[in-house]
Amino acid sequence: MNDDRLSRYRASIDNIDAALVCMLAERFKITQAVGEYKAEVGLPPADESRENEQIERLRTLATEAGLDPAFTEKFLRFIVAEVIRHHHLIAGEN
Amino acid sequence: MNDDRLSRYRASIDNIDAALVCMLAERFKITQAVGEYKAEVGLPPADESRENEQIERLRTLATEAGLDPAFTEKFLRFIVAEVIRHHHLIAGEN
Repeated sequence: MNDDRLSRYRASIDNIDAALVCMLAERFKITQAVGEYKAEVGLPPADESRENEQIERLRTLATEAGLDPAFTEKFLRFIVAEVIRHHHLIAGEN
Repeated sequence: MNDDRLSRYRASIDNIDAALVCMLAERFKITQAVGEYKAEVGLPPADESRENEQIERLRTLATEAGLDPAFTEKFLRFIVAEVIRHHHLIAGEN
């Protein structure tokens, strides 16, 4: 069995996952700052119109990149749910 | 109100999201090839021991990068669930 082929695929997946984790770490640093700013000035944690703009933009980018736009929307909603959870925690602390 | 500050944060988030979408598009290209290879040689779509290795590795990377390891595990499971769904579709086609 050609395990080398599977190993090469998996090595690439592992590299991409490391990049994804690092990008997500940077993204949450920024949303942490957003959450602190929103709590400071009294803005609500969630912003539906901003979220809808993000979804539209990412669906277009996904289609161009060959990624399923429906999955991309689910992905963004998954991330944003975690961000909103953090924003509520930050707002609750203040 | 200092909207410039929020706009700057959001511009960075948008850049990171574009990078995430492109990395995910590349990741799914590879897992598509993995799915086709697995269907060809008769390997099962899911591989629990590989998945556990990925989770352990990414939890460590996340901690080093300042990202919540519990969220990172949820993130990987979210992606892998979509991959396994694709693998089943590919296996069913053959």
